[in-house]
Amino acid sequence: MQFRSDNYGPAHPEVMQAVMDANQGYDVSYGDDAPMQQVRAQIREIFEAPEAAVYLVATGTAANALALATLARPWQSLFCTPEAHIATDECNAPEFYSGGAKLTLVGAGDKMDAETLRAVIAPFEARGVHGAQRGPVSLTQTTELGRCYTQAEVAAIADVAHDFGQPLYMDGARLANAIAALGCSPADLTHRAGVDALSLGGTKNGCLGVEAVVFFNPARAWEFELRRKRGGHLFSKNRFLAAQMQAYLSDGLWLRSAAAANANCARLAEGLRPVPGVTFLHEPDANALFVRMPRAMHRRLRAAGGHYYLWDAEEADLAREGGPVLARMVCDWSLPVAEIDRFVALAAA
Amino acid sequence: MQFRSDNYGPAHPEVMQAVMDANQGYDVSYGDDAPMQQVRAQIREIFEAPEAAVYLVATGTAANALALATLARPWQSLFCTPEAHIATDECNAPEFYSGGAKLTLVGAGDKMDAETLRAVIAPFEARGVHGAQRGPVSLTQTTELGRCYTQAEVAAIADVAHDFGQPLYMDGARLANAIAALGCSPADLTHRAGVDALSLGGTKNGCLGVEAVVFFNPARAWEFELRRKRGGHLFSKNRFLAAQMQAYLSDGLWLRSAAAANANCARLAEGLRPVPGVTFLHEPDANALFVRMPRAMHRRLRAAGGHYYLWDAEEADLAREGGPVLARMVCDWSLPVAEIDRFVALAAA
Amino acid sequence: MQFRSDNYGPAHPEVMQAVMDANQGYDVSYGDDAPMQQVRAQIREIFEAPEAAVYLVATGTAANALALATLARPWQSLFCTPEAHIATDECNAPEFYSGGAKLTLVGAGDKMDAETLRAVIAPFEARGVHGAQRGPVSLTQTTELGRCYTQAEVAAIADVAHDFGQPLYMDGARLANAIAALGCSPADLTHRAGVDALSLGGTKNGCLGVEAVVFFNPARAWEFELRRKRGGHLFSKNRFLAAQMQAYLSDGLWLRSAAAANANCARLAEGLRPVPGVTFLHEPDANALFVRMPRAMHRRLRAAGGHYYLWDAEEADLAREGGPVLARMVCDWSLPVAEIDRFVALAAA
Amino acid sequence: MQFRSDNYGPAHPEVMQAVMDANQGYDVSYGDDAPMQQVRAQIREIFEAPEAAVYLVATGTAANALALATLARPWQSLFCTPEAHIATDECNAPEFYSGGAKLTLVGAGDKMDAETLRAVIAPFEARGVHGAQRGPVSLTQTTELGRCYTQAEVAAIADVAHDFGQPLYMDGARLANAIAALGCSPADLTHRAGVDALSLGGTKNGCLGVEAVVFFNPARAWEFELRRKRGGHLFSKNRFLAAQMQAYLSDGLWLRSAAAANANCARLAEGLRPVPGVTFLHEPDANALFVRMPRAMHRRLRAAGGHYYLWDAEEADLAREGGPVLARMVCDWSLPVAEIDRFVALAAA
Repeated sequence: MQFRSDNYGPAHPEVMQAVMDANQGYDVSYGDDAPMQQVRAQIREIFEAPEAAVYLVATGTAANALALATLARPWQSLFCTPEAHIATDECNAPEFYSGGAKLTLVGAGDKMDAETLRAVIAPFEARGVHGAQRGPVSLTQTTELGRCYTQAEVAAIADVAHDFGQPLYMDGARLANAIAALGCSPADLTHRAGVDALSLGGTKNGCLGVEAVVFFNPARAWEFELRRKRGGHLFSKNRFLAAQMQAYLSDGLWLRSAAAANANCARLAEGLRPVPGVTFLHEPDANALFVRMPRAMHRRLRAAGGHYYLWDAEEADLAREGGPVLARMVCDWSLPVAEIDRFVALAAA
Repeated sequence: MQFRSDNYGPAHPEVMQAVMDANQGYDVSYGDDAPMQQVRAQIREIFEAPEAAVYLVATGTAANALALATLARPWQSLFCTPEAHIATDECNAPEFYSGGAKLTLVGAGDKMDAETLRAVIAPFEARGVHGAQRGPVSLTQTTELGRCYTQAEVAAIADVAHDFGQPLYMDGARLANAIAALGCSPADLTHRAGVDALSLGGTKNGCLGVEAVVFFNPARAWEFELRRKRGGHLFSKNRFLAAQMQAYLSDGLWLRSAAAANANCARLAEGLRPVPGVTFLHEPDANALFVRMPRAMHRRLRAAGGHYYLWDAEEADLAREGGPVLARMVCDWSLPVAEIDRFVALAAA
Repeated sequence: MQFRSDNYGPAHPEVMQAVMDANQGYDVSYGDDAPMQQVRAQIREIFEAPEAAVYLVATGTAANALALATLARPWQSLFCTPEAHIATDECNAPEFYSGGAKLTLVGAGDKMDAETLRAVIAPFEARGVHGAQRGPVSLTQTTELGRCYTQAEVAAIADVAHDFGQPLYMDGARLANAIAALGCSPADLTHRAGVDALSLGGTKNGCLGVEAVVFFNPARAWEFELRRKRGGHLFSKNRFLAAQMQAYLSDGLWLRSAAAANANCARLAEGLRPVPGVTFLHEPDANALFVRMPRAMHRRLRAAGGHYYLWDAEEADLAREGGPVLARMVCDWSLPVAEIDRFVALAAA
Repeated sequence: MQFRSDNYGPAHPEVMQAVMDANQGYDVSYGDDAPMQQVRAQIREIFEAPEAAVYLVATGTAANALALATLARPWQSLFCTPEAHIATDECNAPEFYSGGAKLTLVGAGDKMDAETLRAVIAPFEARGVHGAQRGPVSLTQTTELGRCYTQAEVAAIADVAHDFGQPLYMDGARLANAIAALGCSPADLTHRAGVDALSLGGTKNGCLGVEAVVFFNPARAWEFELRRKRGGHLFSKNRFLAAQMQAYLSDGLWLRSAAAANANCARLAEGLRPVPGVTFLHEPDANALFVRMPRAMHRRLRAAGGHYYLWDAEEADLAREGGPVLARMVCDWSLPVAEIDRFVALAAA
């Protein structure tokens, strides 16, 4: 009963097969391989962005830090939420890659509000040369707490960023889950809503380890290539990254997997909702459910082999007395329905 | 009627004389000059710290950024208040010099509270390698809003920092004003209260441009010297920095100037307190007064040549309608009493 | 007839199988996976280093830059040869990761000589705080020109580095080829010869993309983990890196592949040596041959589908007139013998 | 008899007077002061560059590192000579401020030759994304070995830099000495010869500590201002930097001082030239003389109070036996002629 993270899951058979198939004889290194040509074409078609610059890296931290460093300058501040992965889970990677840019936290929680952003960014340069300068705005779609931004919400935030001459970046580690949940087109949810660059995650949704970075405006594409190289993120055998992404984007696998993960989460929520003592931080939009439950229930689930992440790490101590715990339960596309139901039954027992 | 900032003021005649006197013939460059030997001895004696490593730089930003970079590592977070100069007024200098460390803002406003710090720092490393690691704590004494930390307040914060193995740094751009205001010994207010390193400002209190950096524990002194050099802050003619600091620390000039500035501020507060429509953000501890006053009064004072800084820069537009403004009035040691009284009279008119 | 680079080659079937096998169900992310435990044990056993800290990354640039940044400080200079990959082919990755360290080039060409190193490093800090400080020494084994350092040569260089308190790092992108060529034990050629840390390449020798970083002295292991994370090189699904390395180190696959590559190169050299007009830059020690040949021969080979890298890129212009060209021919483990013979026959034609 | 360095010398009385005069009452901080307006006008007039962006910092390392970081990108290489101050004496300041750019050393010694530069820079980007990219070229005028570039030499180097789209920077720590020696106009020797940006040193030629940074093309002026601030090099009491530079540039003081220093050096050379056993590394162009002399003469001069710098620091050990020593003798503008003659007499004794 593995709900700890979607990065605990396996790669999808179609992705594995593509990696096998890519292992035939010799191919050009460092990104000029045949599969990469196809990936570029696939992403430009899927996002209806024929000019887009498309690159692959192996981790989400690399995708975010390299893209943001390319969009920002060292004396600027990025704008993101307090729960943003780039703020909490990347060990200062954005600060490192950007050469010392700052992160200004907007609002509270995981989801940014356009008006709150405006209130923060508008007076930002009042101190002239003394203060950090305005920089890119970064959204996470779906958010770190499993919620989606609608196209309208993204557009409202993009308007604020653009009003101040700043680009909007989308951390799309789980973008597929949002598109599957919202049922809108990739183009509508991104560049048509004002997103200037994004990452498209594959690792958490059926790949071994690959993320695409997409610049809808390719003006700084060469700078990105240099940053990727000096960051050590240009693969000599790039074909093995490209093969994953190629299969991932073929026959809608990326959306099929995301829909499966979302459905698993919905089933889990449905099962847990009526359980006495259980409450949700909020209704899940995609594949992550945040559940507050009695400590006794938590102990029972753990003892029975239920795996999930306690949001307040301090509560991880099972021996510790105290009130309810807040658990993050992430559903992978590969999760067997029977496992979900068994988990729910245990909780309800 | 110049209350805009103490860095608008002149240098003290005794400091100027010392600079003249240092201009005799040849002296060794890069910090081995005779005046520097004396400055080192003076600071060790004044702070009762015979082992202290003592250095000079020309700006407060250099002092803070170099000292904090020496105390921190790039993957750590510093801890300071939202009003901290290092967070708001140094254009990411701490992030730059540290190689990408983060600043985590503790509490609200200008003054850090030990318990609030503990609540922030205690769970800080729950995310292991993924999150920023704990780093140094930085206090500003006196604060950016003109308040002092008592010895007990400093000690309480130092205890929290030390409980988590982190050093306490004191941004002492206006440390002299705090010592003059509190009437305690430099040693008691700093290393005896747990401060591990500090800057001692001269620029805002009668010097041309000099700040001392003091490490009570000299373990990383050589690293600081290398950072100062590669930062371009090692002066070939260091004697002209040393001469300023030498005079500043002689015959208690640094405390005489600070006391004069504090007295000027007290006189200003006394004069403005009874004026209808005037309120203070808080009672001033040192030489900075934060005054809320009707916009009409502000216009009258400006028109008559009253100079001060509007805390909300957007209010700077005189034409703009609206409610009261919040003004920062900083009193320099050199301010003529008559000027203060004239300003008060204008406000009361 | 593909001699352009060993990173053009496929992954070994045993490695692919291990990746398949690792794709079963759920495993812990970020390096606590089961395959990683085995890789750590394998490397400690193979190198007879029970205390060694062992990590995996996906690229050679990441391995070098992260390891060197961990061993160096920003105000130091690294020491390497003018042909070193870290100096010529990593787009300033060492400077970037180290926070601004310098590379001082020792001697000429690809192979460092202990006495030349001593002559460079001995007077290095004569300028005190003004000059860059001494830092780690980096060797590439086998070198960028396909030569090996003997155990004695490594030890002599290590002695110089250690005489000045600096660690010796070995860029082992092709270390397997050197061990296979020299027939000595991994321990003898590395830590017993004074190597303090190294990278062990898999990518160029039968893997998809994986390099091990080994610190024989684990003192800075945690710092490396933080640097790897903030560099974006910590894989969530680390098991897919570990599976590659596990298979690579099982049943001597890493040495079997290296020996095959070396044998292919020896066969190529044997075939080309008697061809009129052909000379070698030097006899190959491992799997890279540097061949000087008449331009006409070069044109003929290119036309017939012979692929290799022209060392002087300017010569790549086939239309260009002029004397002989210098070609780098790298032999992959997977190269069919018939292809080598066909290539030789073409050259001799 | 002080020939160790021109940074051992005093400030000129006219400069000191200007600093005194600037210490009247209140002035705007951070560079908007009245003296700064005049300095900007003076430099634009002297260099016949009405559009030039002009800034002041306090050290030569700050001027070079900030200007070069503004002109370069982190993935580029700067080009300078092996003797360049930025390469040997700034503890990696250029690497630090640029965010990890590399320095490629052109030729040997102190003076760059256009053809040698072309041979280095032309094939520089043959490795594409893998190698460092071309960056700015930096000249030191006068060189670290006391020689001047003629206008024609500067122009030839500028042509090479511009042919490859790179700017030419001039480290002008001793630019005044070159202009005084060559007798050409500041404009002819700089922007008319193709120099894009430069530093104009005051510290070594009669100031307390001030260097101007001039961008003939102000396109990146705002970036420089942000870099200066975050580097801690923006002075709150900038008026004390400006006052020095203002006096320095008034009534030709900068050229008067430089001419005096050059004349002192010529007198020293004239006196030492006939002394048996004395040879010059080359004839001095400005105020630095490099003298090879017997060790016994060196001992005698030292014992008698002769101060200079031994170029091979290892020779500094007086007890050490061995052949002749190479001494750098720098003549300050303030050096009494009698001291020079006494020194010469001692050498000839």
